[in-house]
Amino acid sequence: MLKMKIILTGVALIVSSLIQSQNSIVHPNLYLTKQDVQLIKENLGTIPLFDNSISTLKAGIDKALNKPIDVPLPKDPAGGYTHTTHKQNYVNMFGAGILWQITGNKVYAEYVKKMLMSYADIYPSLPLHPVEKSYARGKLFWQLLNEAVWLIYADIAYDCIYDFLQGKEREFIENNLLLPYADFLSIKNSRFFNRIHNHGVWAVAAVGMTGFVTDKMELVDRALYGIENKKGKAGFFEQINKLFSPQGYYTEGPYYQRYVLTPFLLFAQSIEINMPEKKIFAYRDSVLQKAVWANLQLTNENGYFFPINDAIKEMSFKSQSMINAVDIIYSQFPKNKYLLSIAKKQNEVIISGAGFKVANALKAGKEKPFKRVSVILGDGSDGNRGAIGILRSTYPSCNITVLMKYATQGLGHGHFDRLSMLMYNDGNEILTDYGAVRFVNILYKEGGRYLPENSTWAKQTIAHNTITIDKRSDFNGNYHIAEKYHSEAFFFNVSNDKVQIMSAKENNAYSNVKLHRTIALVNDTLIFPNPVVVDIFRVSSNEKHTIDIAWHYNGQFMSSNVKYRSYVNTLEPLDLQNGYQHLWVKSEATNNDSCFRFIFMNSNRFYSLTSNLPKTNKVYFVQTGANDPKFNLRCENGIIERIIDYNEYVFVNTLEVFGSHNSISEITKNLNYSIVTTNVVYNDPKYTIVKIYKNDNEKVYLALSNIEKNKKTIHFVSADGKTFSWQGVCHLFNNQ
Amino acid sequence: MLKMKIILTGVALIVSSLIQSQNSIVHPNLYLTKQDVQLIKENLGTIPLFDNSISTLKAGIDKALNKPIDVPLPKDPAGGYTHTTHKQNYVNMFGAGILWQITGNKVYAEYVKKMLMSYADIYPSLPLHPVEKSYARGKLFWQLLNEAVWLIYADIAYDCIYDFLQGKEREFIENNLLLPYADFLSIKNSRFFNRIHNHGVWAVAAVGMTGFVTDKMELVDRALYGIENKKGKAGFFEQINKLFSPQGYYTEGPYYQRYVLTPFLLFAQSIEINMPEKKIFAYRDSVLQKAVWANLQLTNENGYFFPINDAIKEMSFKSQSMINAVDIIYSQFPKNKYLLSIAKKQNEVIISGAGFKVANALKAGKEKPFKRVSVILGDGSDGNRGAIGILRSTYPSCNITVLMKYATQGLGHGHFDRLSMLMYNDGNEILTDYGAVRFVNILYKEGGRYLPENSTWAKQTIAHNTITIDKRSDFNGNYHIAEKYHSEAFFFNVSNDKVQIMSAKENNAYSNVKLHRTIALVNDTLIFPNPVVVDIFRVSSNEKHTIDIAWHYNGQFMSSNVKYRSYVNTLEPLDLQNGYQHLWVKSEATNNDSCFRFIFMNSNRFYSLTSNLPKTNKVYFVQTGANDPKFNLRCENGIIERIIDYNEYVFVNTLEVFGSHNSISEITKNLNYSIVTTNVVYNDPKYTIVKIYKNDNEKVYLALSNIEKNKKTIHFVSADGKTFSWQGVCHLFNNQ
Repeated sequence: MLKMKIILTGVALIVSSLIQSQNSIVHPNLYLTKQDVQLIKENLGTIPLFDNSISTLKAGIDKALNKPIDVPLPKDPAGGYTHTTHKQNYVNMFGAGILWQITGNKVYAEYVKKMLMSYADIYPSLPLHPVEKSYARGKLFWQLLNEAVWLIYADIAYDCIYDFLQGKEREFIENNLLLPYADFLSIKNSRFFNRIHNHGVWAVAAVGMTGFVTDKMELVDRALYGIENKKGKAGFFEQINKLFSPQGYYTEGPYYQRYVLTPFLLFAQSIEINMPEKKIFAYRDSVLQKAVWANLQLTNENGYFFPINDAIKEMSFKSQSMINAVDIIYSQFPKNKYLLSIAKKQNEVIISGAGFKVANALKAGKEKPFKRVSVILGDGSDGNRGAIGILRSTYPSCNITVLMKYATQGLGHGHFDRLSMLMYNDGNEILTDYGAVRFVNILYKEGGRYLPENSTWAKQTIAHNTITIDKRSDFNGNYHIAEKYHSEAFFFNVSNDKVQIMSAKENNAYSNVKLHRTIALVNDTLIFPNPVVVDIFRVSSNEKHTIDIAWHYNGQFMSSNVKYRSYVNTLEPLDLQNGYQHLWVKSEATNNDSCFRFIFMNSNRFYSLTSNLPKTNKVYFVQTGANDPKFNLRCENGIIERIIDYNEYVFVNTLEVFGSHNSISEITKNLNYSIVTTNVVYNDPKYTIVKIYKNDNEKVYLALSNIEKNKKTIHFVSADGKTFSWQGVCHLFNNQ
Repeated sequence: MLKMKIILTGVALIVSSLIQSQNSIVHPNLYLTKQDVQLIKENLGTIPLFDNSISTLKAGIDKALNKPIDVPLPKDPAGGYTHTTHKQNYVNMFGAGILWQITGNKVYAEYVKKMLMSYADIYPSLPLHPVEKSYARGKLFWQLLNEAVWLIYADIAYDCIYDFLQGKEREFIENNLLLPYADFLSIKNSRFFNRIHNHGVWAVAAVGMTGFVTDKMELVDRALYGIENKKGKAGFFEQINKLFSPQGYYTEGPYYQRYVLTPFLLFAQSIEINMPEKKIFAYRDSVLQKAVWANLQLTNENGYFFPINDAIKEMSFKSQSMINAVDIIYSQFPKNKYLLSIAKKQNEVIISGAGFKVANALKAGKEKPFKRVSVILGDGSDGNRGAIGILRSTYPSCNITVLMKYATQGLGHGHFDRLSMLMYNDGNEILTDYGAVRFVNILYKEGGRYLPENSTWAKQTIAHNTITIDKRSDFNGNYHIAEKYHSEAFFFNVSNDKVQIMSAKENNAYSNVKLHRTIALVNDTLIFPNPVVVDIFRVSSNEKHTIDIAWHYNGQFMSSNVKYRSYVNTLEPLDLQNGYQHLWVKSEATNNDSCFRFIFMNSNRFYSLTSNLPKTNKVYFVQTGANDPKFNLRCENGIIERIIDYNEYVFVNTLEVFGSHNSISEITKNLNYSIVTTNVVYNDPKYTIVKIYKNDNEKVYLALSNIEKNKKTIHFVSADGKTFSWQGVCHLFNNQ
C-alpha cells in the first residue's frame, strides 16, 4: 500500500506540472492538419473514392448521432456489452471529430465534446476493470491493449474539436481524462509500456499522441525513448529498431504485423507533423515503408495474410489497418505507385491528407500493379535470425506459392513450427496452416480470447507441415527456450524463375537432431509437364527417433497406392499429447510399395503427393476434432508419414499439380501426373542427391551441397553410376 | 436366340426402307437454319457477346484440329480414356460443324467429315461395351445415356456439313452410322427408349433428330409417339405430358431438370424448324417455357440449383444446358426479358439463331431483372402429386429462402426426404441437403458413378432436415413403394409478404404415422426484430415411436443451453443402418431446460435454433464420416433431437437469424436473439396452437387449422386462458 501511494503522488506531480505548459501549437496536429482540411474542403465532390469514403463514414456516424451517448460502467469481457460499447465510442468519436473538421457541422463537434466530457466525468473514479484475465488490466477494458487503442482515437477526436472547446473544457478533459489516462498507460503500467511487442507500440503511440495534442513534450519524450529507468532501451525508436528486420518483417508474423502497423504509422504521422526534424519515415533506411511492402508480400493471391503463428485466416489487406498503412505510406513515399492498386482494391481511403493524396492519385490513374514476388524476408532486428522464404511461380494456368518459415519463434504468439511449409495455388490453400484457435470478439467463444486448443493444437509442431521428432513439439513446447534460437537461412536462389530453391536448417528444436529442409519450385515443362514442388527434408541424429512428417492438406481424398485400413466404427486419437490428442485416426496404412502416393482434389485441380516413405513404415490419415469438447476446432484433414527407429533419413516428397475438373461442365481433363517415385541416391554430411522418376522412366536429379554454400564452389559427386558435377549449393539435373 | 434374330431382321428391313426416302429438305435444319446462318454472317463483329462466344468456341475447336482424329475402340468406364475421348469427339464435331457454317472455312467441314467417316468405319462391327455396369449398355459408352447424347451432337454436326458431303459419303455415314445407331437406341433398346425418364428423353431426341437430318420421317414418328407397341404411351409428347407438372417442375428435381432440358429443347427446336405445324413450344400451355422458369426459380441467390434428390451442389445456371435453355426459350418467347439478365450472367450464348437473338437483345439493353419469388411448384403431370414449396423474403440485410419438399419420390434419383426443409441466407446454405455422393466424371471415384454412400447415406431420411420414425427411412427405404405415394400440399399462402406460410402432410411414409409440417417465414420487425423461421412439425400415430428430427446445419458451433457431454477420446456411430451408421456422435445431451437452444455461426451471421424438446429427452451433435472407408463423404455437422415412446408430438422449432461478425474489422454486433422458448398450448386433430416467447415476455401465437382448409372458414379455439379466433387455415397472433 505504501508503494502504491508513492507512485500515485508521483503521478499527481507530473500531471500538475504538465498542465502548466503553454498551448502554442496549431490544431489539428495528429491525424489531420489545417492544410489537409483546407485541401479536402476545396476538393469535395470532385474525387470519387474520397467522396465515397466520406459518405461511408458519415452514414455510420450519423446513425450513432441518433442514439444517446452511452458510457457504461466497465464490466464485461471482450465481446460483451460494455466492452463493445467503449470500442464503438472511440470509433464514433474519431469519425465525428473528422467530420466536424471536414463539414463544419457542429453536431459532430458537440457529440465528441459530450462524449469526452462523459468519460472525463467518470475516469478519475474508475477502478481497475473487474475481469481479471490479463497480465495488464485496464479500466475501461479488461486488457490495457484495448485501453491504449481507445486513447489514440480519443486523442485524435479531441485534436479535431480542440478549437471548438472552451479553455475550461479542455482543462477538464485533459486533467481528468487524457493526462491521467496517459500516465496510467505508462508510469503506472511500465511493464506494459516498455514492452518491445505490439502491446508496447500501442501504449507508446497513445502516450506520445496525447503529448502532441496536449502539448506536453515530456509525454512525447517518454513515448519516443521510454520511461526514465529504461531511457533509450524502450519507447518508439527502440520498437522500430527491434521489432522490424531490415527488410521490414515484423517478428510476430503477418497477422500481427498488420495490426501493429496502425500505432506505428499513426504515431509516426503525428511525429512527422509535429517534429519533422526527426525524419521518422526515413528512420532506419525507411523501414516503416518496407514494413508495409513486406506485409503485402505476406498475402496470398486473394489478399489474405499467410496464417503463420497466431492468426485469423479471414484477415486480408482490406482491413482498416492496411487501408491506413497504404494511405500513410503512399503519402510519404508517392513513388510507391503499386500502393495505389492496393488502395483501389481496398476501395476506401482514410479521411485525411494521406487518404486524399491516394484518392487523388487514383483519380489521375497513377496506379501501378502490385507484384507478389519470390522473396526472403529476414527476421530479427539485424535480419539474420532466420527468415520467411517465399517462392512464387506463375506457371501457365497456375499461380503457385510456397512459403517456408525458418525464422524466430515470433514472441508469445509464435508457433512451434520450425521449417514448416505452406502451399497455395491461385490463392487456394493447398497445404495449410491452421492459424489460431480463436473467434475474435465473439462472446460465445470465451469472450473472443484465445481458446485452450490454441495452445494444445494450433501452436504444436504436429499441427504444421514439418517434421516432429519423437511425438514432441520443437523445444518441448517451451516458449522461453524457443525464443532463444532461430532457424538458419542456408540458401535462397530465385534467379532462375523456372527452378526456384530455398533451403534452411534447424539445429536447436530437438537436442542432438539436425533438420535441414530444401524446397524447390519447378515450373519448366521441359522438366515436368506440371508445376512440381520438390521437398527434401534431411534429419540426422546420433540417436534413433520416431520421425513424423505431416501434410495438412485442404481437399477431398481421391486415391492412394497404399492399402489403407479405415476405422469405420470407432475413432481414436493418434496419441495423448503435444497436439496428437486432437487428431482422429481415420485410416492407417503400412507402405508396401516403392513409394507412397496420395492424390487429392482442391478447387477443381488435382494434387499428387509422392514420397520415398520406406516400406513397412506407416501412414496415418487424420482429421482434427478429437479432444475438442466445446467444438472449437474446424474439421481439417491431414496425412502423417511416420518412420520409427531412424537416426537419419532424407524424406523426398514431391507435390505435383495436375489435371482439372470443371464442376459446371462436369468435364475432367488430363488426369496424368508425371512423377512415379522418388528416392535418395547419395547422402552424407556434405552432399545429398535425390532422384525423381518421371512416367516415361526419365529421371531428374537434385544435388545439394549440405555445408558449403559458396556460390562459386564446384562440387563433384559419384552416385547412381554417374558423376554429378555442379557449381554452387544446389543443381537440378534433367533427363540424365 | 430366335427372338433376337427376328428383331434383327426387322431392324434391317426398316433401315433399308428408310434409306430409300428422298432428300427433299434444306440443310441445316436441326440447330441452325440457312436464315440463321445468313443473319449471323451479316452481323459478325457487331454484337460483342455473340462474337465472344464464337471466339471461345473457335479457340477450343482450333486446338482440337491440331490433334489427329482419335476414335479409340471403346473400353473404359466413365472418366476413362476412351469414354472421355468419345465425349470430346462429339463436342468437337458439333463445334466444328457450326464453325463451318459460320466461317465457311473448309478445315472445319473436313474435320467433321473425317470424324464421322471414322465412326462409320467402325460402328457396324462394334460389340456391346465391355463395361457391364448399366441396365442399358451402349457400344461407344458403358451406358446408353452417353450413347444418345453422342448421337444428338453427331446429328447436328452431320447436318452442318450435309451440303459439303458427296452423295456417297452421306449414304455411307447414314447407312453405317446414323441409321443403325438410331435403331440401336430405339428398337434394339426399347425399354430404354420408351422410358418416361431423362434417359428416354435423350434417346427420343437423338432418334428424332436423326430422322430430321436424314429425312426419315418414320424415325421422327417413332420419336414423337414411341415404338410401335407403345404408340402414344411413349415418345416425346408423352414425355412432355408426364415428366413436367403444369407449373414446369420436372419430377426428378432441379439438377436433373437442368440436364433434361437439353434434349427437350434441342429436339423441340428441330421440330419447330421442320414441323412448325406441331406448335411444339405452345404445347401443353407452353410448358417447356414454364420449365425453364421453374428451373431458374429452383436456384439459390448465387445461381446454384437446390440440391434436392441426387444432385451435385456445384451445378449452377451457368451450365451449358442452361445457356442452351435460356437462349432457345428466349428466341421462342421474346417477351421473357428476364431471361436476358440470366444470359448476361452466363456471359455466353449458343452459336445459333437463338443465341444470336439473345446477344442482339442484350446489346439493345432489353434485359429485365430475374426475380426469385415465393412459389409452389406442383409435382406430377397434373400438378397434384405434392409440390416443392419455396418461401423467399428480402428482409432488410437478409435474403432468406426456405424450401420444403413435399412432392413425389422423384423417380430413381429421388431421396427419402418427405417434408424436408432447406434454408438459405443470401445464397449461403444454412440448413443443408447433402446432395449426391458422387464425383461426376472423376475416374478416382469409381469412374464418376454414384458411390455406395449415395444409397447408404445421401438418400436416407436421416440425411435430411425432417423427421425419421423409429430410425427407419421413409417407406423403409423401398423406392418402388415410395414411388407410389406423394405428400399432400395442404396450404400455401404468401399473400402477406411479412408472414409467409406453407404447410404439407405425409401420411404414407410410415405406416400408421401421420406427419404434418407447417413452416412460416416471418420478417416483420413488429413481430420479431430478426427474420425467423417457425417450424411446426406434428407427428401423430396410434402407437409409440422413437422420433428423430434432424438439423443439418452449415456453420461453426457457438453455444448451447444444454449440458452436453463430448466424446473426446473415442467416437462411435449413432446407429447401425439407414444412414445412422455414417454419423459420428461427437456429443450428446439430455435436455433439462424448458427449451433446447443451439447457436451457430455461418458466413458472419448467427443463427439460434430454439426447440420445445421435452425435458429428459436427448440431443445428439453429429458429424458425417463414419463407415466411409474410402473417404467419399464430406465432413458435415448436424443435430438430432430425439424423443422416445411418443405416439404424438408437435415440435415447435424456430430458427432466428441475428447479429453479425465482420472478420476484417473483427467487430461483432447485436448478439441478441429474441426468441427464448417455444411450446404448444393446444393440439387436437382439428387445431394446433403454438406459443413463442420473446425476450421481453411478449408472446406470439401461431394457430393452425389441421383439417379444414377453406380460406373463408372462421375458427374459434380456447387455449392458454384466451380465445383465439381467425379466418382461414393459419393465423399469427402478435403480442397477445
